Amino acid sequence: MDEIIWATPLYEFLRQCSLTSLDRTVLDCGAGSHGDRPPPLLLFYQQGYATYGIEINDEPLLHAKKFCADNGIPLNIFRGDMRRIPFADRTFSFVYSYNAIFFMTKTDVAVAMHEIKRVLRPKGLCFVNFLSVDDPDRRPFRKDNSASRLLGSRRFSRFRDGEADIYFRGFDILLKEKRIIEKLYEGRRLKQAYIDYIARRRR
Amino acid sequence: MDEIIWATPLYEFLRQCSLTSLDRTVLDCGAGSHGDRPPPLLLFYQQGYATYGIEINDEPLLHAKKFCADNGIPLNIFRGDMRRIPFADRTFSFVYSYNAIFFMTKTDVAVAMHEIKRVLRPKGLCFVNFLSVDDPDRRPFRKDNSASRLLGSRRFSRFRDGEADIYFRGFDILLKEKRIIEKLYEGRRLKQAYIDYIARRRR
Repeated sequence: MDEIIWATPLYEFLRQCSLTSLDRTVLDCGAGSHGDRPPPLLLFYQQGYATYGIEINDEPLLHAKKFCADNGIPLNIFRGDMRRIPFADRTFSFVYSYNAIFFMTKTDVAVAMHEIKRVLRPKGLCFVNFLSVDDPDRRPFRKDNSASRLLGSRRFSRFRDGEADIYFRGFDILLKEKRIIEKLYEGRRLKQAYIDYIARRRR
Repeated sequence: MDEIIWATPLYEFLRQCSLTSLDRTVLDCGAGSHGDRPPPLLLFYQQGYATYGIEINDEPLLHAKKFCADNGIPLNIFRGDMRRIPFADRTFSFVYSYNAIFFMTKTDVAVAMHEIKRVLRPKGLCFVNFLSVDDPDRRPFRKDNSASRLLGSRRFSRFRDGEADIYFRGFDILLKEKRIIEKLYEGRRLKQAYIDYIARRRR
């Protein structure tokens, strides 16, 4: 009985990864965790993948390392910057970045997407989600340190419906899913809007 | 290592169910399966839930029963109609209907939603997804028997953004998620659009 991960769109990514015949190696860009939540890499670890993760911010990095130490689970999460991914070209079959890339400016997003492609093997799959312009961007974590460190006083980077397609040159987009969410969160009504991509590197 | 289920929005429903202290009993309305895919109830079975499912159509019912027999997994799926759910009031902590309710007319959807509420316990959770008016409704399974049996020559029932809210009187809506999907499916580009609800019965 595996633990259910809160980052549910990654289940579809995992399912598509597991349909391929590629080596089970995966990298998470922005692999830290918050509070009691386990790092999403746990999902892949539970399925027998060799997992690696990079995280630029202190607090989520500490939470993730503590989870690994407390549970004896080697997710291999360490400090790193997705604008300069510390791995060689074509290292991973699978790379993802969940709820992370939009903490950066659009200039940095372009750099990070180039890096994600670089470390992916040919025919490898990536998952990246973007914040939509339809997201009101008024969430509780709006003002936390991780956002302000990378964006300064700016807001999150938000994308129009087709705007992020440009990052997937040299990929086939297998799935693009816009999710417009209304939810009860700690007694308050929140709206969120994301655009998720699953894409396969052509060669 | 559990099998990953294709019906990924159910992972969020399962996660929310597992956060409650209610008995682990779940009913799937439209519980059949297609081709090699396991019935989605497997997801709950893997987590230790007592599972029950009803299915009105022959072929998905046979597929589901074959899966259970071949794998020795008692999901308890049998023939039944969600317009007359064959269980007593307040039997289940959790009830869901995934990609199923919109095969019926809107009149029947109202009846089925009333039935789902009836068999739910107070504070029990349900998941139901609806087809959005933004769905072009031109999928390969458009003309299959299960659709034509319930809808005759009509198209699927499709819903405007807030239209299905009315079915959740007496519930708190915990999550409402509109998903607008573009995907590659057997070499063709498909568009789909759904509106998913997770709701809690008040009393």
